[in-house]
Amino acid sequence: MEFSEKEREIVYQAIFNRRDVRSEFQDRPVPDEVIRRILDAAHHAPSVGFMQPWDFIVVRDLEVRRQIKAAFQDANAVGATRFEGERREKYNSLKLEGILDAPMGICITCDRTRNGPSVLGKAQNPEMDLYSTVCAVQNLWLAARAENLGAGWVSIIDHDRLKQILQVPDQMTLVAYLCIGYVDFFHEKPQLEKAGWLSRIELDQLIHFDGW
Amino acid sequence: MEFSEKEREIVYQAIFNRRDVRSEFQDRPVPDEVIRRILDAAHHAPSVGFMQPWDFIVVRDLEVRRQIKAAFQDANAVGATRFEGERREKYNSLKLEGILDAPMGICITCDRTRNGPSVLGKAQNPEMDLYSTVCAVQNLWLAARAENLGAGWVSIIDHDRLKQILQVPDQMTLVAYLCIGYVDFFHEKPQLEKAGWLSRIELDQLIHFDGW
Repeated sequence: MEFSEKEREIVYQAIFNRRDVRSEFQDRPVPDEVIRRILDAAHHAPSVGFMQPWDFIVVRDLEVRRQIKAAFQDANAVGATRFEGERREKYNSLKLEGILDAPMGICITCDRTRNGPSVLGKAQNPEMDLYSTVCAVQNLWLAARAENLGAGWVSIIDHDRLKQILQVPDQMTLVAYLCIGYVDFFHEKPQLEKAGWLSRIELDQLIHFDGW
Repeated sequence: MEFSEKEREIVYQAIFNRRDVRSEFQDRPVPDEVIRRILDAAHHAPSVGFMQPWDFIVVRDLEVRRQIKAAFQDANAVGATRFEGERREKYNSLKLEGILDAPMGICITCDRTRNGPSVLGKAQNPEMDLYSTVCAVQNLWLAARAENLGAGWVSIIDHDRLKQILQVPDQMTLVAYLCIGYVDFFHEKPQLEKAGWLSRIELDQLIHFDGW
Protein backbone atom coordinates (compact mmCIF):
# COMPACT_ATOMS: atom_id res chain seq x y z
CA MET A 1 0.00 0.00 0.00
CA GLU A 2 1.39 3.36 -1.16
CA PHE A 3 0.43 6.54 0.72
CA SER A 4 -0.46 9.58 -1.35
CA GLU A 5 0.61 13.04 -0.21
CA LYS A 6 -2.94 13.71 1.00
CA GLU A 7 -3.07 10.47 2.96
CA ARG A 8 0.34 11.16 4.46
CA GLU A 9 -0.95 14.50 5.74
CA ILE A 10 -3.83 12.75 7.52
CA VAL A 11 -1.39 10.49 9.38
CA TYR A 12 0.59 13.58 10.37
CA GLN A 13 -2.61 15.21 11.59
CA ALA A 14 -3.14 12.32 13.99
CA ILE A 15 0.46 12.63 15.18
CA PHE A 16 0.48 16.43 15.56
CA ASN A 17 -3.04 16.77 16.97
CA ARG A 18 -2.70 14.01 19.56
CA ARG A 19 -2.87 15.45 23.08
CA ASP A 20 -2.34 14.19 26.61
CA VAL A 21 -5.90 14.84 27.71
CA ARG A 22 -6.74 15.38 31.38
CA SER A 23 -9.88 17.51 31.16
CA GLU A 24 -12.64 18.08 28.60
CA PHE A 25 -13.78 14.46 28.87
CA GLN A 26 -17.42 13.67 28.18
CA ASP A 27 -18.94 10.83 30.14
CA ARG A 28 -20.76 9.19 27.22
CA PRO A 29 -19.56 5.62 26.86
CA VAL A 30 -17.13 4.47 24.19
CA PRO A 31 -18.78 1.78 22.01
CA ASP A 32 -17.35 -1.73 22.32
CA GLU A 33 -16.35 -1.87 18.65
CA VAL A 34 -14.35 1.36 19.02
CA ILE A 35 -12.54 -0.02 22.07
CA ARG A 36 -11.76 -3.15 20.11
CA ARG A 37 -10.37 -1.18 17.17
CA ILE A 38 -7.95 0.84 19.31
CA LEU A 39 -6.85 -2.32 21.14
CA ASP A 40 -6.27 -4.04 17.80
CA ALA A 41 -4.14 -1.06 16.76
CA ALA A 42 -2.12 -1.47 19.97
CA HIS A 43 -1.78 -5.20 19.30
CA HIS A 44 -0.24 -4.39 15.90
CA ALA A 45 2.69 -2.52 17.41
CA PRO A 46 6.17 -3.82 16.69
CA SER A 47 7.50 -6.23 19.31
CA VAL A 48 10.96 -7.66 19.83
CA GLY A 49 11.13 -11.20 18.43
CA PHE A 50 7.37 -10.87 17.71
CA MET A 51 6.77 -11.68 21.40
CA GLN A 52 3.66 -9.45 21.75
CA PRO A 53 4.20 -9.11 25.49
CA TRP A 54 1.21 -6.87 26.19
CA ASP A 55 -2.16 -7.36 27.91
CA PHE A 56 -4.96 -4.80 28.13
CA ILE A 57 -7.32 -4.20 31.02
CA VAL A 58 -10.39 -2.15 30.11
CA VAL A 59 -11.55 -0.37 33.26
CA ARG A 60 -15.09 0.95 33.27
CA ASP A 61 -16.30 0.02 36.76
CA LEU A 62 -16.73 3.21 38.81
CA GLU A 63 -15.68 1.65 42.12
CA VAL A 64 -12.42 0.38 40.59
CA ARG A 65 -11.75 3.80 39.08
CA ARG A 66 -12.40 5.44 42.46
CA GLN A 67 -9.65 3.29 43.95
CA ILE A 68 -7.32 4.28 41.10
CA LYS A 69 -8.15 7.95 41.66
CA ALA A 70 -7.26 7.60 45.35
CA ALA A 71 -3.92 6.02 44.36
CA PHE A 72 -3.26 8.98 42.06
CA GLN A 73 -4.12 11.47 44.80
CA ASP A 74 -1.65 9.93 47.23
CA ALA A 75 1.13 9.88 44.62
CA ASN A 76 0.33 13.43 43.55
CA ALA A 77 0.58 14.76 47.09
CA VAL A 78 4.12 13.39 47.21
CA GLY A 79 4.84 14.66 43.66
CA ALA A 80 3.99 18.24 44.63
CA THR A 81 6.65 18.23 47.35
CA ARG A 82 9.34 17.95 44.65
CA PHE A 83 8.69 21.59 43.74
CA GLU A 84 8.85 24.77 45.82
CA GLY A 85 7.29 28.22 45.99
CA GLU A 86 5.74 29.46 42.76
CA ARG A 87 6.57 26.22 40.98
CA ARG A 88 4.65 24.20 43.57
CA GLU A 89 1.68 26.57 43.31
CA LYS A 90 1.68 26.10 39.55
CA TYR A 91 2.01 22.32 40.00
CA ASN A 92 -1.00 22.29 42.30
CA SER A 93 -3.03 24.33 39.80
CA LEU A 94 -2.50 21.76 37.03
CA LYS A 95 -5.08 19.06 36.38
CA LEU A 96 -3.02 15.95 35.77
CA GLU A 97 -5.53 13.14 35.21
CA GLY A 98 -9.10 12.40 34.17
CA ILE A 99 -9.64 9.06 35.91
CA LEU A 100 -13.23 9.79 36.97
CA ASP A 101 -14.09 12.36 34.28
CA ALA A 102 -13.46 9.92 31.44
CA PRO A 103 -15.84 6.95 31.23
CA MET A 104 -13.01 4.44 31.10
CA GLY A 105 -9.34 3.67 31.41
CA ILE A 106 -7.07 1.16 29.71
CA CYS A 107 -4.19 -0.41 31.61
CA ILE A 108 -1.36 -1.92 29.54
CA THR A 109 0.98 -4.50 31.06
CA CYS A 110 4.09 -6.33 29.85
CA ASP A 111 4.65 -10.05 30.40
CA ARG A 112 8.44 -10.20 30.43
CA THR A 113 8.42 -14.00 30.54
CA ARG A 114 6.18 -14.55 27.50
CA ASN A 115 7.57 -17.08 25.03
CA GLY A 116 10.21 -18.35 27.44
CA PRO A 117 13.65 -17.14 28.43
CA SER A 118 15.04 -16.77 24.89
CA VAL A 119 13.33 -14.11 22.84
CA LEU A 120 14.94 -13.18 19.53
CA GLY A 121 16.56 -9.76 19.83
CA LYS A 122 16.15 -9.42 23.59
CA ALA A 123 19.38 -11.02 24.85
CA GLN A 124 21.47 -7.91 24.30
CA ASN A 125 18.87 -5.38 25.41
CA PRO A 126 16.40 -6.94 27.84
CA GLU A 127 14.38 -3.72 28.11
CA MET A 128 13.16 -4.29 24.54
CA ASP A 129 10.00 -6.04 25.79
CA LEU A 130 9.02 -2.99 27.83
CA TYR A 131 9.81 -0.74 24.87
CA SER A 132 7.62 -2.92 22.62
CA THR A 133 4.77 -2.42 25.07
CA VAL A 134 5.28 1.35 24.97
CA CYS A 135 5.03 1.18 21.15
CA ALA A 136 1.63 -0.47 21.71
CA VAL A 137 0.64 2.41 24.00
CA GLN A 138 1.58 4.96 21.34
CA ASN A 139 -0.33 3.05 18.65
CA LEU A 140 -3.36 2.99 20.92
CA TRP A 141 -3.03 6.71 21.58
CA LEU A 142 -2.86 7.64 17.89
CA ALA A 143 -5.72 5.26 17.05
CA ALA A 144 -7.75 6.93 19.80
CA ARG A 145 -7.03 10.34 18.25
CA ALA A 146 -8.21 9.10 14.86
CA GLU A 147 -11.41 7.92 16.62
CA ASN A 148 -11.77 11.46 18.04
CA LEU A 149 -11.11 10.07 21.51
CA GLY A 150 -8.95 11.84 24.03
CA ALA A 151 -6.39 9.80 25.95
CA GLY A 152 -4.17 10.75 28.88
CA TRP A 153 -1.32 8.76 30.46
CA VAL A 154 -1.45 8.76 34.27
CA SER A 155 2.20 8.52 35.28
CA ILE A 156 1.74 9.87 38.80
CA ILE A 157 0.68 6.64 40.45
CA ASP A 158 2.25 3.78 42.40
CA HIS A 159 2.33 0.85 39.96
CA ASP A 160 2.36 -1.77 42.73
CA ARG A 161 -0.81 -0.32 44.17
CA LEU A 162 -2.41 -0.13 40.71
CA LYS A 163 -1.47 -3.78 40.14
CA GLN A 164 -3.21 -4.70 43.40
CA ILE A 165 -6.36 -2.76 42.51
CA LEU A 166 -6.52 -4.43 39.07
CA GLN A 167 -5.41 -7.86 40.37
CA VAL A 168 -2.54 -7.98 37.91
CA PRO A 169 -0.41 -11.12 38.44
CA ASP A 170 2.95 -10.54 40.15
CA GLN A 171 5.09 -11.44 37.14
CA MET A 172 3.53 -8.75 34.94
CA THR A 173 5.07 -5.29 34.70
CA LEU A 174 2.61 -2.45 34.66
CA VAL A 175 3.55 -0.05 31.88
CA ALA A 176 0.70 2.44 31.47
CA TYR A 177 -2.75 3.51 32.58
CA LEU A 178 -4.60 5.78 30.18
CA CYS A 179 -7.87 7.63 30.72
CA ILE A 180 -9.96 7.47 27.55
CA GLY A 181 -13.12 9.14 26.35
CA TYR A 182 -14.74 11.52 23.91
CA VAL A 183 -13.86 15.15 24.54
CA ASP A 184 -15.42 18.58 24.07
CA PHE A 185 -12.33 19.70 22.13
CA PHE A 186 -8.61 19.07 21.78
CA HIS A 187 -6.14 21.74 22.88
CA GLU A 188 -3.98 23.23 20.15
CA LYS A 189 -0.84 22.77 22.20
CA PRO A 190 0.24 20.51 25.05
CA GLN A 191 -1.18 21.84 28.30
CA LEU A 192 2.19 22.06 30.04
CA GLU A 193 3.46 24.18 27.14
CA LYS A 194 0.36 26.39 27.29
CA ALA A 195 0.66 26.77 31.05
CA GLY A 196 4.27 27.92 30.66
CA TRP A 197 5.64 24.93 32.57
CA LEU A 198 8.25 24.24 29.86
CA SER A 199 8.70 25.35 26.23
CA ARG A 200 9.01 23.22 23.14
CA ILE A 201 12.65 22.69 22.24
CA GLU A 202 13.71 23.81 18.74
CA LEU A 203 13.94 20.66 16.61
CA ASP A 204 17.28 21.74 15.11
CA GLN A 205 18.87 21.63 18.55
CA LEU A 206 18.06 17.93 18.76
CA ILE A 207 19.41 16.74 15.40
CA HIS A 208 22.98 15.52 14.91
CA PHE A 209 24.63 14.08 11.82
CA ASP A 210 26.81 10.94 11.68
CA GLY A 211 27.85 11.43 15.30
CA TRP A 212 26.92 13.59 18.28
CA MET B 1 -9.79 18.75 14.22
CA GLU B 2 -12.38 15.97 13.79
CA PHE B 3 -11.42 12.82 11.90
CA SER B 4 -13.95 11.45 9.43
CA GLU B 5 -14.43 7.70 9.08
CA LYS B 6 -12.37 7.75 5.88
CA GLU B 7 -9.54 9.68 7.51
CA ARG B 8 -9.60 7.33 10.49
CA GLU B 9 -9.09 4.40 8.14
CA ILE B 10 -5.99 6.03 6.68
CA VAL B 11 -4.45 6.34 10.14
CA TYR B 12 -5.25 2.66 10.74
CA GLN B 13 -3.60 1.81 7.42
CA ALA B 14 -0.36 3.37 8.62
CA ILE B 15 -0.64 1.41 11.88
CA PHE B 16 -1.55 -1.95 10.32
CA ASN B 17 0.78 -1.70 7.32
CA ARG B 18 3.85 -0.61 9.29
CA ARG B 19 6.54 -3.29 9.15
CA ASP B 20 9.90 -3.92 10.80
CA VAL B 21 11.88 -3.79 7.57
CA ARG B 22 15.22 -5.58 7.25
CA SER B 23 15.39 -6.25 3.50
CA GLU B 24 13.89 -4.74 0.36
CA PHE B 25 15.69 -1.43 0.98
CA GLN B 26 16.56 0.72 -2.03
CA ASP B 27 19.73 2.76 -1.77
CA ARG B 28 18.29 5.99 -3.20
CA PRO B 29 18.73 8.75 -0.65
CA VAL B 30 15.92 10.08 1.50
CA PRO B 31 15.43 13.83 0.83
CA ASP B 32 16.35 16.17 3.68
CA GLU B 33 12.82 17.57 3.96
CA VAL B 34 11.42 14.05 4.38
CA ILE B 35 13.95 13.29 7.14
CA ARG B 36 12.96 16.52 8.83
CA ARG B 37 9.25 15.68 8.67
CA ILE B 38 9.68 12.28 10.31
CA LEU B 39 11.94 13.78 12.99
CA ASP B 40 9.37 16.49 13.65
CA ALA B 41 6.75 13.74 14.05
CA ALA B 42 9.04 12.04 16.58
CA HIS B 43 9.53 15.35 18.38
CA HIS B 44 5.75 15.64 18.76
CA ALA B 45 5.50 12.46 20.82
CA PRO B 46 4.10 12.75 24.33
CA SER B 47 6.74 13.21 27.02
CA VAL B 48 6.49 13.07 30.78
CA GLY B 49 6.34 16.59 32.22
CA PHE B 50 6.88 17.84 28.62
CA MET B 51 10.61 17.12 29.12
CA GLN B 52 11.24 16.09 25.46
CA PRO B 53 14.26 14.01 26.48
CA TRP B 54 15.16 12.80 22.98
CA ASP B 55 17.97 13.54 20.53
CA PHE B 56 18.29 12.24 16.99
CA ILE B 57 21.45 11.23 15.16
CA VAL B 58 21.01 10.90 11.41
CA VAL B 59 23.61 8.41 10.17
CA ARG B 60 24.38 8.44 6.45
CA ASP B 61 28.19 8.11 6.44
CA LEU B 62 29.11 4.68 5.05
CA GLU B 63 32.19 4.20 7.25
CA VAL B 64 30.15 4.89 10.39
CA ARG B 65 27.48 2.45 9.22
CA ARG B 66 30.14 -0.19 8.56
CA GLN B 67 31.22 0.08 12.18
CA ILE B 68 27.60 -0.27 13.30
CA LYS B 69 27.19 -3.32 11.07
CA ALA B 70 30.26 -4.92 12.69
CA ALA B 71 28.77 -4.25 16.14
CA PHE B 72 25.55 -5.95 15.03
CA GLN B 73 27.45 -8.96 13.68
CA ASP B 74 29.26 -9.52 16.97
CA ALA B 75 26.03 -9.25 18.97
CA ASN B 76 24.21 -11.51 16.53
CA ALA B 77 26.82 -14.27 16.80
CA VAL B 78 26.16 -14.31 20.55
CA GLY B 79 22.37 -14.06 20.00
CA ALA B 80 22.35 -17.22 17.87
CA THR B 81 23.87 -19.26 20.71
CA ARG B 82 20.66 -18.72 22.71
CA PHE B 83 18.90 -21.18 20.39
CA GLU B 84 19.65 -24.79 19.53
CA GLY B 85 19.21 -27.27 16.68
CA GLU B 86 16.47 -26.39 14.20
CA ARG B 87 15.66 -23.18 16.03
CA ARG B 88 19.24 -21.98 15.65
CA GLU B 89 19.25 -22.90 11.96
CA LYS B 90 16.09 -20.87 11.52
CA TYR B 91 17.61 -17.99 13.51
CA ASN B 92 20.66 -17.98 11.27
CA SER B 93 18.48 -17.94 8.16
CA LEU B 94 16.71 -14.77 9.24
CA LYS B 95 17.87 -11.37 8.02
CA LEU B 96 17.65 -9.17 11.08
CA GLU B 97 18.91 -5.74 9.98
CA GLY B 98 19.45 -3.52 6.96
CA ILE B 99 22.25 -1.29 8.24
CA LEU B 100 24.16 -1.18 4.95
CA ASP B 101 21.25 -1.91 2.58
CA ALA B 102 19.32 1.17 3.69
CA PRO B 103 20.90 4.53 2.85
CA MET B 104 20.64 5.78 6.42
CA GLY B 105 19.92 5.09 10.04
CA ILE B 106 18.48 7.21 12.82
CA CYS B 107 19.66 6.78 16.39
CA ILE B 108 17.38 8.01 19.18
CA THR B 109 18.74 8.76 22.63
CA CYS B 110 17.24 9.82 25.95
CA ASP B 111 18.73 12.53 28.16
CA ARG B 112 17.54 11.39 31.57
CA THR B 113 18.86 14.56 33.22
CA ARG B 114 17.11 17.05 30.94
CA ASN B 115 15.27 19.81 32.81
CA GLY B 116 16.92 18.99 36.12
CA PRO B 117 16.25 16.42 38.80
CA SER B 118 12.53 17.19 39.23
CA VAL B 119 10.43 16.40 36.21
CA LEU B 120 6.67 16.54 36.64
CA GLY B 121 5.27 13.01 36.64
CA LYS B 122 8.62 11.22 36.79
CA ALA B 123 9.16 10.98 40.57
CA GLN B 124 6.93 7.93 40.97
CA ASN B 125 7.98 6.15 37.78
CA PRO B 126 11.49 7.22 36.72
CA GLU B 127 11.36 5.04 33.59
CA MET B 128 8.80 7.47 32.11
CA ASP B 129 11.56 9.43 30.31
CA LEU B 130 12.70 6.29 28.49
CA TYR B 131 9.08 5.44 27.68
CA SER B 132 8.55 8.95 26.28
CA THR B 133 11.52 8.39 24.00
CA VAL B 134 10.03 5.10 22.79
CA CYS B 135 6.80 6.98 21.96
CA ALA B 136 8.99 9.22 19.77
CA VAL B 137 10.40 6.13 18.06
CA GLN B 138 6.91 4.84 17.30
CA ASN B 139 5.80 8.24 15.97
CA LEU B 140 8.85 8.28 13.72
CA TRP B 141 8.12 4.76 12.51
CA LEU B 142 4.50 5.53 11.60
CA ALA B 143 5.49 8.81 9.95
CA ALA B 144 8.07 6.88 7.93
CA ARG B 145 5.36 4.44 6.82
CA ALA B 146 3.16 7.34 5.71
CA GLU B 147 6.17 8.61 3.71
CA ASN B 148 6.40 5.14 2.10
CA LEU B 149 9.69 4.59 3.91
CA GLY B 150 10.61 1.30 5.51
CA ALA B 151 12.11 1.35 9.00
CA GLY B 152 13.63 -1.43 11.08
CA TRP B 153 14.70 -1.37 14.73
CA VAL B 154 18.12 -2.98 15.31
CA SER B 155 17.85 -4.40 18.82
CA ILE B 156 20.69 -6.93 18.46
CA ILE B 157 23.56 -4.57 19.23
CA ASP B 158 25.66 -3.52 22.20
CA HIS B 159 24.44 -0.03 23.10
CA ASP B 160 27.72 0.97 24.76
CA ARG B 161 29.60 0.15 21.59
CA LEU B 162 27.03 2.00 19.48
CA LYS B 163 27.40 5.02 21.78
CA GLN B 164 31.14 4.94 21.24
CA ILE B 165 30.79 4.73 17.46
CA LEU B 166 28.38 7.67 17.42
CA GLN B 167 30.26 9.63 20.12
CA VAL B 168 27.16 9.85 22.27
CA PRO B 169 27.91 11.58 25.61
CA ASP B 170 28.09 9.27 28.62
CA GLN B 171 25.01 10.63 30.37
CA MET B 172 22.71 9.83 27.42
CA THR B 173 20.85 6.53 27.24
CA LEU B 174 20.74 4.96 23.82
CA VAL B 175 17.18 3.84 23.11
CA ALA B 176 16.98 2.83 19.45
CA TYR B 177 18.79 2.58 16.14
CA LEU B 178 16.54 2.32 13.08
CA CYS B 179 17.53 1.59 9.48
CA ILE B 180 15.50 3.79 7.14
CA GLY B 181 14.96 3.91 3.40
CA TYR B 182 12.58 3.51 0.51
CA VAL B 183 11.66 -0.11 -0.17
CA ASP B 184 10.65 -2.27 -3.12
CA PHE B 185 7.56 -3.40 -1.22
CA PHE B 186 6.17 -3.90 2.28
CA HIS B 187 5.44 -7.43 3.48
CA GLU B 188 1.81 -8.20 4.26
CA LYS B 189 2.71 -9.72 7.61
CA PRO B 190 5.60 -9.39 10.06
CA GLN B 191 8.51 -11.47 8.81
CA LEU B 192 8.84 -13.51 12.00
CA GLU B 193 5.16 -14.44 11.69
CA LYS B 194 5.62 -15.35 8.02
CA ALA B 195 8.72 -17.41 8.80
CA GLY B 196 6.78 -19.39 11.42
CA TRP B 197 8.97 -18.15 14.26
CA LEU B 198 5.91 -17.24 16.38
CA SER B 199 2.20 -16.74 15.63
CA ARG B 200 0.06 -13.71 16.28
CA ILE B 201 -1.81 -14.05 19.56
CA GLU B 202 -5.62 -13.81 19.37
CA LEU B 203 -6.56 -10.32 20.57
CA ASP B 204 -9.37 -11.67 22.76
CA GLN B 205 -6.84 -13.59 24.84
CA LEU B 206 -5.18 -10.29 25.76
CA ILE B 207 -8.20 -8.28 26.86
CA HIS B 208 -9.45 -8.19 30.47
CA PHE B 209 -12.28 -6.19 32.00
CA ASP B 210 -12.13 -4.19 35.26
CA GLY B 211 -9.42 -6.50 36.61
CA TRP B 212 -7.20 -9.31 35.36
